[in-house]
Amino acid sequence: MAEKIRVTVWNEYRHEREIPKVAAIYPQGIHAALAAALGAQADIAAATATLDEADNGLGEKVLAATDVLMWWGHKVHDAVADATVDRVQTAVLKGMGLIVLHSGHYSKIFRRLMGTTCQLMWREAGERELLWTARPGHPILAGVPNPVVLEHTEMYGEPFDIPEPDETVLISSFAGGEVFRSGITYRRGAGKVFYFRPGHETYPIYHDPVVQRILINAVRWAAPSGSMAIELPCRKMNWWQQPKPPAAR
Amino acid sequence: MAEKIRVTVWNEYRHEREIPKVAAIYPQGIHAALAAALGAQADIAAATATLDEADNGLGEKVLAATDVLMWWGHKVHDAVADATVDRVQTAVLKGMGLIVLHSGHYSKIFRRLMGTTCQLMWREAGERELLWTARPGHPILAGVPNPVVLEHTEMYGEPFDIPEPDETVLISSFAGGEVFRSGITYRRGAGKVFYFRPGHETYPIYHDPVVQRILINAVRWAAPSGSMAIELPCRKMNWWQQPKPPAAR
Amino acid sequence: MAEKIRVTVWNEYRHEREIPKVAAIYPQGIHAALAAALGAQADIAAATATLDEADNGLGEKVLAATDVLMWWGHKVHDAVADATVDRVQTAVLKGMGLIVLHSGHYSKIFRRLMGTTCQLMWREAGERELLWTARPGHPILAGVPNPVVLEHTEMYGEPFDIPEPDETVLISSFAGGEVFRSGITYRRGAGKVFYFRPGHETYPIYHDPVVQRILINAVRWAAPSGSMAIELPCRKMNWWQQPKPPAAR
Amino acid sequence: MAEKIRVTVWNEYRHEREIPKVAAIYPQGIHAALAAALGAQADIAAATATLDEADNGLGEKVLAATDVLMWWGHKVHDAVADATVDRVQTAVLKGMGLIVLHSGHYSKIFRRLMGTTCQLMWREAGERELLWTARPGHPILAGVPNPVVLEHTEMYGEPFDIPEPDETVLISSFAGGEVFRSGITYRRGAGKVFYFRPGHETYPIYHDPVVQRILINAVRWAAPSGSMAIELPCRKMNWWQQPKPPAAR
Repeated sequence: MAEKIRVTVWNEYRHEREIPKVAAIYPQGIHAALAAALGAQADIAAATATLDEADNGLGEKVLAATDVLMWWGHKVHDAVADATVDRVQTAVLKGMGLIVLHSGHYSKIFRRLMGTTCQLMWREAGERELLWTARPGHPILAGVPNPVVLEHTEMYGEPFDIPEPDETVLISSFAGGEVFRSGITYRRGAGKVFYFRPGHETYPIYHDPVVQRILINAVRWAAPSGSMAIELPCRKMNWWQQPKPPAAR
Repeated sequence: MAEKIRVTVWNEYRHEREIPKVAAIYPQGIHAALAAALGAQADIAAATATLDEADNGLGEKVLAATDVLMWWGHKVHDAVADATVDRVQTAVLKGMGLIVLHSGHYSKIFRRLMGTTCQLMWREAGERELLWTARPGHPILAGVPNPVVLEHTEMYGEPFDIPEPDETVLISSFAGGEVFRSGITYRRGAGKVFYFRPGHETYPIYHDPVVQRILINAVRWAAPSGSMAIELPCRKMNWWQQPKPPAAR
Repeated sequence: MAEKIRVTVWNEYRHEREIPKVAAIYPQGIHAALAAALGAQADIAAATATLDEADNGLGEKVLAATDVLMWWGHKVHDAVADATVDRVQTAVLKGMGLIVLHSGHYSKIFRRLMGTTCQLMWREAGERELLWTARPGHPILAGVPNPVVLEHTEMYGEPFDIPEPDETVLISSFAGGEVFRSGITYRRGAGKVFYFRPGHETYPIYHDPVVQRILINAVRWAAPSGSMAIELPCRKMNWWQQPKPPAAR
Repeated sequence: MAEKIRVTVWNEYRHEREIPKVAAIYPQGIHAALAAALGAQADIAAATATLDEADNGLGEKVLAATDVLMWWGHKVHDAVADATVDRVQTAVLKGMGLIVLHSGHYSKIFRRLMGTTCQLMWREAGERELLWTARPGHPILAGVPNPVVLEHTEMYGEPFDIPEPDETVLISSFAGGEVFRSGITYRRGAGKVFYFRPGHETYPIYHDPVVQRILINAVRWAAPSGSMAIELPCRKMNWWQQPKPPAAR
């Protein structure tokens, strides 16, 4: 492939600037860590955007140059402007891929695209998570072991208030016995959406090479196949717009 | 069944008061015509609510007494308060059925639950529509002929920007050659959603006994099976909330 | 409701006659234990059928008098005649409900309806299973605690080679850390299908009142809403079979 | 991409040898016409296989060298050996793409993968078909006009007895007023399946450049992303196969 997939990693970027424990793990922010891991691939060009930039970092120009948007937010979901959510939603419907990470389940954009509360159960106890393959051979799992083992994670538990996924790719269990649909896909308009559970800011999850492998695969999977120049349907038609009306019999 | 299904038929109720041609077809409003047809069934109790009432006619008390909400809007979707949309969405997720009619595809509540634009193509030429059964034996089609023939309708054409339906029940063709997924179902949270295409305000569609049969069936299908006292998932769990932790080996 | 739901509980009925340990748990066979539990409900009439009866117990007459078929098999799936599988498949497509239990995942009829191998991972170690609610408010879970706790079960683990479920109702974790989609639904033709994982023959799972509650709910959920007199589509049409051809313009 | 997608076009190849009218349209057989159109693409290597060859042309060696199988059958579906169907099903579940054409809806392999009868309504009257885009931006529709117009086709009408599609890509209307889901996708195991309606043997449908464009796109879409060396799940696990058991607390 001649051209690279253009990824923009978005981060609200507050924890890392306010909480020393988080800053110790992600000194330049989660977005920078992820962009470095993704951008190291020959076929991916990674940029970043953050909440406190103009237009929340996601103006029309940035979105027009983004094939896949990766989303990390946690503390201040409501600080994202509704106009930003509108722009991102439109971009997804026209074909931009979207990868939502961990606490991003409760972001405005994910709730917007799902139509449900996206609420869940949780516990922060640094417990062990096993992520089991539910779809062998799915491209997001290329080169990924079964199960993926993460020694210390925040627990998310079912019920997860989402529409039935198009594809259930990964299901987790936790040391406490709970379960969670940790890797799921949706199509909304022409865009592909992947939600990936792991990633609390107080654990070095995004430095894990297996997690990075999953996210690299997800970027390739979510990249639009076409031009993203889809015209959303909204047109008054008349009899003659049709190439030729069906012949009377 | 001892208790009746409580239906609330909602209408923005503007066309009928402003356009004589519409008033001639629905003198008391579309909501009144539909409520009369539904309420004539022994197992259905039908009430109405309209946009210009307090809380858009859909305060907490009304929603708590509604098993199935039927929605008709067209001209002034934006006049519905966001708080009303929030209340209706929550009620659906907790188990209330929702039946969205015709131009309600572009209502705030339907777009909220779908996560897409719900846009489509259209033409108002009073042309013939055939609605074909795609799911024989579906309860919404009990006693309904295949195809249903409507002589004069507004055309809606694909693409219809929606998530893939859970069930495609009816597909229409129009005299002009277009097609449309005219009867589709979704589950969102504990609630069942049915979208039904026919129904422009300048045609007497809702006086058609076959259309009424479909809507009566849809009310029975969408009625919640349980108590609608679902607790939405949003709880911090600790180790000990679980009945007993799994035994160490 | 005046009429009862007619359930037929099918069992290959071999373990109970050959293995004393199983006979001790289910002296009259698993089918008899389940039929007793179901038939104790005022709205359910339960009968049984077994492999070694004529037509595998499932002749046309039996199927015509069955609203919901419950299936238990394990040792000798291949002993079921293909003609029996054909009859059951046709009955499901015409509207009969089907509830497949535990090792029935590998029955001919379930694999026929799924189109996949329905294979999975397993371990028999009498370990603890937690079944978590993934769809709060689903009728199959009415009155069912979250999680359901079964102290001693055979483990089934993902990947489970099935098409994506229409609804994921229950997800299990096991003491060994594995996960499984333990309660899932499909629609095939006019029939509803529910797969329920728990139930190994060497554990008294079907004597558990919570398991019985789930199966009673599932019977009510899977019962056909219509007449099961669906005509499967297979007809040569001519121009004039249509009520009236669309008018030429 | 360095390597080409290896397509095998399968044809029962009977009509063309027996019916002069068909031979006039496809002198070398439908398979040869399709293979020529596909193989003209730089990234596709096309081979053919036919019913009357050894192993129905689809032995293990052929399937192991096939990324995407295209299937055309009509007259003698039952002449395909069950062992062939088994081999093709296994190949699909392990990741091989499958494109089923027109009357192949009633092939053993499609019915095997769907679990339903795949029956439909039909009429052979050489009437006009319009194929409408239901999923703008889907890769199978790249460069394809909306609607696609085919002047003379055999009609297929709903109901089409299939499981709800994963994606509804194209919906047709016919001059007689019927509708049909003409382009639909499924995932079964690791394999992608695309059903495409147009193509009766007495019409030169497969010489149409728009139809060829759709099929070329479908080949690229259905090509496996991985190695097709998926291990189907079927393994007895013990406590120690897991990397490390979850720690006791």
